[in-house]
Amino acid sequence: MIYLDNAATTPLDGCVLEEMLPYLRENYGNSQSQHSLGRASANALVCARDFFAQALGCRSEEIYFTSGGTECGNTALKGACSARGKGHIIVSAIEHPSLIESAKDMLARGFEVTFVNPDKDGRVQPAEIERAMRQDTFFCAVASANNETGVIQPAREIGEICRKRGVFYYADCVQSAGTQKLSCDFCDGLGISAHKFYGPKGAGVLYIKSGGKISRLISGGMQERGLRGGTVNVAAAVGMAKAYENALLNLEKNRAYISGLKNSFVKRVLAEIDGAYLNGGGEILPSHANISFDGCDGENILFALDLKGIAVSTGSACSAGAVNPSHVLTAMGLPYERVRSAVRFSFGKYNTAEEVNKTVKALKEIISKIRSVNGRNTH
Amino acid sequence: MIYLDNAATTPLDGCVLEEMLPYLRENYGNSQSQHSLGRASANALVCARDFFAQALGCRSEEIYFTSGGTECGNTALKGACSARGKGHIIVSAIEHPSLIESAKDMLARGFEVTFVNPDKDGRVQPAEIERAMRQDTFFCAVASANNETGVIQPAREIGEICRKRGVFYYADCVQSAGTQKLSCDFCDGLGISAHKFYGPKGAGVLYIKSGGKISRLISGGMQERGLRGGTVNVAAAVGMAKAYENALLNLEKNRAYISGLKNSFVKRVLAEIDGAYLNGGGEILPSHANISFDGCDGENILFALDLKGIAVSTGSACSAGAVNPSHVLTAMGLPYERVRSAVRFSFGKYNTAEEVNKTVKALKEIISKIRSVNGRNTH
Repeated sequence: MIYLDNAATTPLDGCVLEEMLPYLRENYGNSQSQHSLGRASANALVCARDFFAQALGCRSEEIYFTSGGTECGNTALKGACSARGKGHIIVSAIEHPSLIESAKDMLARGFEVTFVNPDKDGRVQPAEIERAMRQDTFFCAVASANNETGVIQPAREIGEICRKRGVFYYADCVQSAGTQKLSCDFCDGLGISAHKFYGPKGAGVLYIKSGGKISRLISGGMQERGLRGGTVNVAAAVGMAKAYENALLNLEKNRAYISGLKNSFVKRVLAEIDGAYLNGGGEILPSHANISFDGCDGENILFALDLKGIAVSTGSACSAGAVNPSHVLTAMGLPYERVRSAVRFSFGKYNTAEEVNKTVKALKEIISKIRSVNGRNTH
Repeated sequence: MIYLDNAATTPLDGCVLEEMLPYLRENYGNSQSQHSLGRASANALVCARDFFAQALGCRSEEIYFTSGGTECGNTALKGACSARGKGHIIVSAIEHPSLIESAKDMLARGFEVTFVNPDKDGRVQPAEIERAMRQDTFFCAVASANNETGVIQPAREIGEICRKRGVFYYADCVQSAGTQKLSCDFCDGLGISAHKFYGPKGAGVLYIKSGGKISRLISGGMQERGLRGGTVNVAAAVGMAKAYENALLNLEKNRAYISGLKNSFVKRVLAEIDGAYLNGGGEILPSHANISFDGCDGENILFALDLKGIAVSTGSACSAGAVNPSHVLTAMGLPYERVRSAVRFSFGKYNTAEEVNKTVKALKEIISKIRSVNGRNTH
């Protein structure tokens, strides 16, 4: 199989699983338990937490383990709203569903929300964020990079605008983690998800700046200093730390390798297939290529590629199965024809140049066939 | 090590881990992805969901996968409140912190809450629940069995009272799952947690009766029919199903074995140690024994046992580290002396008669020593 859906999820690295196995076998203690077996688990959590604090440049007590990126986003947005009680929040129109849908839930609870559109390149302009600011704005969410297009956002400038106004800035860094060097110095909250960087599913890290006014989403015991109840999945936290350590150790190498593959793929597709367009402009993550194909339906391309053993996606996996066309491409102002024909190819460290060749070849055949079936053979 | 803290967490069964490994290795697809690798994950989830539906006697679309028991309780209680908007809820005073703390959060959001005390045996009387009912009551939470004492609650009668009044009844079944045959016919919502029955941490099953008015807690993609966003931890769901299948297959055998061990332990402790009292009366889970020791501090006993390689707890692990004495024993009306000296011994299928002997012996020495240090040698 040729797996070009690394933005949806990545395989768990063997060395990460090895690191997790002791916590899936003999070290099974509940990290809240006070006996030695529990303290061994608690110690493993301390190490994982300290590692992330160092990696992100914050204090250990600003790191919270969650069940993943979606829970991170929900905790930040809904937590900020619950702590504040009323007021106005800003969410980019191209956020991941975890932020968009959380914002809609808060609308229903009486909060006011401004969804800020990006420009035609898929970039949220800091000036637009500034324009959306109100006296009662207390929260803003713009991801560090978009999950469908991979377009890198001006997070630092947006963070600066928020900082000046005392607005809590949450940066969903789920797509960036693994190929971008992350630091939490530009925001008040940040979320990443282990399974996007060859770690386990069901594990995320949430950074909340000390003093950030966030109420808990999942209440219970005193785990995670009371912000997130529930028995901590120690094996997952340990695995996530190992996976992120690997990602950092190989960051430059992987970034160069992945962007090499991606760039050669994009160059060839745009050159060799008529009516193919790259969606999104400016700086794009090394991993992502969102491409539309005139006269085709993205889903048809996806299924045809799947029959040839090539895995891609149309939008984000979290939007998959949704009846609506991509909210990201739509918000960018792309015409319906471009939106419906978009396919996301996302590359990872296990892809090869040979796979790029095979995919370009398969894609040319498939696009040609779909267009001829649709009575619009462009050749 | 002698592990007598099975109510806090249990080891992951080897056969459960084996079942999970393919989903931690080659079958890593995102269950929302539309390609074959994604569909393989989605199919595994269908199987796990169908299994739980059959095991609990409900429909598959009434089963939701979560990150654990705490998230289940939060989703039910807060979800019912969010769906209703205002009104009154009833929560037993001996609920797990996930329900107690969720109720306090809803108090802060303007809902009204009645915390119903149990009787001196630790049993929540149906008549007390009925007395607490109001015209605007819409939700009630009483666990099927208490996590500290193991006292089995009259859940069926409470469910009947709720049913008659159209009140949503949530039964936290986290402690019962594994040794009690669970069926969802007596309630509107039910939660269990995999790591309490030799499954993985970070995985729970939430049953919500079709038509139950529950808003989502974690918003995002269309995973779990929109009630719970976030990439599903497929390996955990598959492992949880295997663990629960094992539990059901060996239910009678394990129950008889575990209660045999526990009963012999309790009998000996009460007979051989002066001033030892079993907390809670009536029907108690086979696994649990909550015992107080005159003139001792529970934590001292815990740490002394730990030095001898015996793992126990004072309250629930989710309450561990809390400064306050057990809210469960306090609500039962026990005097402070009984509350502060309580230790929870919780037995599991891997414990042995030899371990019971060793623990009784160790306990006698420890209690005697603590009492003599405290200048109150009872011998």
